Amino acid sequence: MSDAPVDANSTCVGPKSEQAGKASSCEGCPSQLLCASGEGRKEDPAVNQIKDAMRIVKHKFLVLSGKGGVGKSTFSSQLALALSLNDKIISKARQGQAAMDEDEDEDMNVTQVGVLDIDLCGPSIPRMFGLESQQLHQSNLGWSPAYYKDNLAVVSIGFMLPNADDPVIWRGPKKNGLIKQFLRDVYWGDSLDYLVIDTPPGTSDEHITVVQYLREADLDGAIVITTPQDVSCADVRRELSFCKKVNIPVIGVVENMSGFVCPNCKNETKIFKPSKSGGGEKLAEQFGVPFLGRIPLDPRVMNACENGKSIIEEMPDSPASQALLEIVQKVKNQTNHLHQNKTF
Amino acid sequence: MSDAPVDANSTCVGPKSEQAGKASSCEGCPSQLLCASGEGRKEDPAVNQIKDAMRIVKHKFLVLSGKGGVGKSTFSSQLALALSLNDKIISKARQGQAAMDEDEDEDMNVTQVGVLDIDLCGPSIPRMFGLESQQLHQSNLGWSPAYYKDNLAVVSIGFMLPNADDPVIWRGPKKNGLIKQFLRDVYWGDSLDYLVIDTPPGTSDEHITVVQYLREADLDGAIVITTPQDVSCADVRRELSFCKKVNIPVIGVVENMSGFVCPNCKNETKIFKPSKSGGGEKLAEQFGVPFLGRIPLDPRVMNACENGKSIIEEMPDSPASQALLEIVQKVKNQTNHLHQNKTF
Repeated sequence: MSDAPVDANSTCVGPKSEQAGKASSCEGCPSQLLCASGEGRKEDPAVNQIKDAMRIVKHKFLVLSGKGGVGKSTFSSQLALALSLNDKIISKARQGQAAMDEDEDEDMNVTQVGVLDIDLCGPSIPRMFGLESQQLHQSNLGWSPAYYKDNLAVVSIGFMLPNADDPVIWRGPKKNGLIKQFLRDVYWGDSLDYLVIDTPPGTSDEHITVVQYLREADLDGAIVITTPQDVSCADVRRELSFCKKVNIPVIGVVENMSGFVCPNCKNETKIFKPSKSGGGEKLAEQFGVPFLGRIPLDPRVMNACENGKSIIEEMPDSPASQALLEIVQKVKNQTNHLHQNKTF
Repeated sequence: MSDAPVDANSTCVGPKSEQAGKASSCEGCPSQLLCASGEGRKEDPAVNQIKDAMRIVKHKFLVLSGKGGVGKSTFSSQLALALSLNDKIISKARQGQAAMDEDEDEDMNVTQVGVLDIDLCGPSIPRMFGLESQQLHQSNLGWSPAYYKDNLAVVSIGFMLPNADDPVIWRGPKKNGLIKQFLRDVYWGDSLDYLVIDTPPGTSDEHITVVQYLREADLDGAIVITTPQDVSCADVRRELSFCKKVNIPVIGVVENMSGFVCPNCKNETKIFKPSKSGGGEKLAEQFGVPFLGRIPLDPRVMNACENGKSIIEEMPDSPASQALLEIVQKVKNQTNHLHQNKTF
């Protein structure tokens, strides 16, 4: 196989080829000069640096979706919050009950969770955790994340902007540079059980860069979010094809906003019609990947999310929380299964 | 003012400066080599070519939003459909009535409308018009758009993919190249009254490129879409700051999905709570730009959109259609006002 970048033309000979920059297929390619100079033949040292930095992270996965506004950041933050809860809270929540404060047990194993937001032009993760006023700090160990709580650390470009309204008007190369720094230079602590990486919609610079760097660093795979709507599913099919093309495993598909429960009459309406394509489950079947579950749209849930609360902790009895509990369990099983033969 | 690109560091001397590539602030910049070579000092010939190609287009505007999934493509397609309707249909619709077939009048002035989809990684415009199976054709005049009807032409990367599920895994420079071709090489016919440009979420390559090329070509401005939700409004504030920074006029703000009308009990729920920030109207006020209106979320509307129908034509009595009619009128007034002292 050639070492051609994933976004190259099919005729690309790859930057490490002797013909790089000189082959007839290089004509008109924006990288021709760079390839001809031999720069491309050098291994990017960041690949190994990131591999080293990521050794302390047990499980890492991307949250992807082809389309924006399907609740990717909401899901990422709720997934991270759920992973960070202790077993007692989880087992109470399974019965639809909130845990009492006295249930807290100092001796319990604590799961360390990190969230990395690489949606550089539209970072909503800080707000999802109610951490808008936080900043990233530099120490001699690297960049320090913002902490939602002791065992939940968050990194986002949102913490680096002088003003939350400032637009990040960056072309690709600049975005790639910051993602490299995030992956290499953040000090997450001694070890992390889970790193949830929230991505922007699409299949462009951010996605290519993060996959290039993490492919060598034991990436567990991707969770793909969709809504039942037709257009959204077309975008998500493209995202699943992307995973296949760049060779990263799909942990599963989550269907979000599956129905709207009217708070007045309790009637559930399918706002986004599943239509011809059959929604997320059919999609997962078509691609031979696991279907993780459906999360209904619930205005109470939206509020909890906007206020940086875990819905599993705050309203364990809601259908959305129960759906999320199932999904989190499946994600844990999937990723443990993937890693069962590895030692850390 | 320096000619520094909008995404450059604040210390950038600009590619046309004598110091380009040599100044101390150039250290570490990915464009240093290019600037030092003097390539940057040459004017991009495409700027003038695009200015020429765009002379036949009377009004052109971008549809922007910081966040995905706020209904940008739905709005773009419904706006284009509405602009393409004749005055009789519009005035009937204002009274909540559908026009009869015999109302069609061959002698009426026909408004020519074009839609350009520059969301290269997630093109949903072809599906919004029910044109998924169409292809772009090359003629000696340029690329021929797909036609929804005689006076409504559509261009999208979706028409260029061998398979609708194929992901477009492209980094920035490749995306910029195609956008340049779309702006320069499409043959829209002898003249176009309106060109609606649908963009991806964010403020990155696509946005910088289209603004760079159209700034010289009489761009009317941008319509910015938001939902009443807090997070979305933060993203849209960034988009409004972007417009200010790159100096393009804001035609107005549209608040989409303002409420959900339960088809069962007719109770309207604010799914996305307007919360502290006060939604689109407050936002428009803060930035001193026009507020164009609110469009409620209506499952019937969603269906019409997914099937490539104009909601104004199909269900003129729905609150969403009436809201859209108002918005379209304001857009027409705004853009006519902007151009009233110009001749074409």
